[in-house]
Amino acid sequence: MSFMQALHARWNQAGTLVCVGLDPEPAKFPARFAGDPDAVFAFCRDIVDATAEFACAFKPQIAHFAALGAEGALERLIAHVHAEHPGVPVILDSKRGDIGSTAQHYATEAFDRYAADAVTANPYLGRDSVQPFLDRADRGVVVLCRTSNPGAGDLQDLVVDGRPLYQHVADKVANEWNSHGNCMLVVGATWPEQLREVRAIVGDVPFLVPGVGAQGGDAGAVVTHARTADGSGLVISSSRAILYASSGDDYAEAAAREARALRDTINRAH
Amino acid sequence: MSFMQALHARWNQAGTLVCVGLDPEPAKFPARFAGDPDAVFAFCRDIVDATAEFACAFKPQIAHFAALGAEGALERLIAHVHAEHPGVPVILDSKRGDIGSTAQHYATEAFDRYAADAVTANPYLGRDSVQPFLDRADRGVVVLCRTSNPGAGDLQDLVVDGRPLYQHVADKVANEWNSHGNCMLVVGATWPEQLREVRAIVGDVPFLVPGVGAQGGDAGAVVTHARTADGSGLVISSSRAILYASSGDDYAEAAAREARALRDTINRAH
Repeated sequence: MSFMQALHARWNQAGTLVCVGLDPEPAKFPARFAGDPDAVFAFCRDIVDATAEFACAFKPQIAHFAALGAEGALERLIAHVHAEHPGVPVILDSKRGDIGSTAQHYATEAFDRYAADAVTANPYLGRDSVQPFLDRADRGVVVLCRTSNPGAGDLQDLVVDGRPLYQHVADKVANEWNSHGNCMLVVGATWPEQLREVRAIVGDVPFLVPGVGAQGGDAGAVVTHARTADGSGLVISSSRAILYASSGDDYAEAAAREARALRDTINRAH
Repeated sequence: MSFMQALHARWNQAGTLVCVGLDPEPAKFPARFAGDPDAVFAFCRDIVDATAEFACAFKPQIAHFAALGAEGALERLIAHVHAEHPGVPVILDSKRGDIGSTAQHYATEAFDRYAADAVTANPYLGRDSVQPFLDRADRGVVVLCRTSNPGAGDLQDLVVDGRPLYQHVADKVANEWNSHGNCMLVVGATWPEQLREVRAIVGDVPFLVPGVGAQGGDAGAVVTHARTADGSGLVISSSRAILYASSGDDYAEAAAREARALRDTINRAH
């Protein structure tokens, strides 16, 4: 089954649009992990196991592992998701982008080394920089369009031929780069109007939507502005609000509570 | 000494604008490395030691290490450059870009974990995504402007207010993001006219220029189009043409010959 088939199956069967972001920061871990050399893996694994029933995807953010030299923990974590929660795809959030011959190595990193089902990618270098990802038709390619951060508009809002750059990216991805049907777009929850505009351009291309929770985006508004006709089309990601819901020994239960509450907020907005 | 001071000192003292790109691909290594579990480090170390006298910088490209799970080799390689060739700065080519809280982890990855002197960064997410790099005033931040690949123009040439996007990036970096004087720009050797145009916009901001050698850019044209008034301002990077100059036991000598030849070609163009 391809990533895109798996995502649709998960939406349908589990009734959730929630993506659990895995951004380990040891300074925020519960006290029980102090001094544990395997804390990064163990904490993330506990979060995964506690939240899987509420998740349509998991999204490990690779910088959080790389800063710690914890690539091994990331490999094991993704293998754990595949083994224990095989219906829940893994989107590796690495936002890579480089010339084609180098992008091929990034595709190897994401899809072969880490066995991710999908990867985020930066479009600034153009289509040939994304092609090695696109060519893996069974995997997903999630292209940055309108990101959730305050400075997103510095480049993305510059107006080209009467419309902002991010809309050109949306158009290119939906109408040129998506020949294998394996593309998604990143559109931040912090920009509800832009969510609506991008949805109008790209039809049913799914969105990865970061920015609810700690960044302040409104999950209900995301749904009303950007769902597809069948009520899905969205992978709404929350990281810190779920991961660090409690710093006590109830961290896993608290994370599950947050993930469930986000699922319910989203489903009520339909 | 900051990265920018070190780069200027190296230009002046060694009389070279050549950057040796370190893109290890074990399939291209000389036969003597077959079966060597430490081949990635050992091959790159030999190239570094053979070419250092002709180099103003080394540029390891991180995807080539990550695809192999060779982060440890990359750490040791950069440590080796610092220990054995302390005047030659290391630019980690990773083209990272993410929201500010995550970009902070990428800055930790590049500058603390790997101890790189400079890092390449993608501007698509806007200034706040680059700020954690900019804030490290002693390190360099090399922002993608006009990349060397065939598809560079897909986004970078889109016209905003009468000039292409890459010129807006050049302008922002030189006039807004460079308050610590630690910025550079990536402009590909494959685009001589664009090199000239960007130079006209940014004054003495140095360029990292990939694309000579295997990608077909003309080193002489780079110099005539983009040098600064003092004849420097350029870090002209060649990877494959140096690394894989010979597949025999003379790989290190051949790499040194190529690096010296590129230095001489560049210096003759002055």
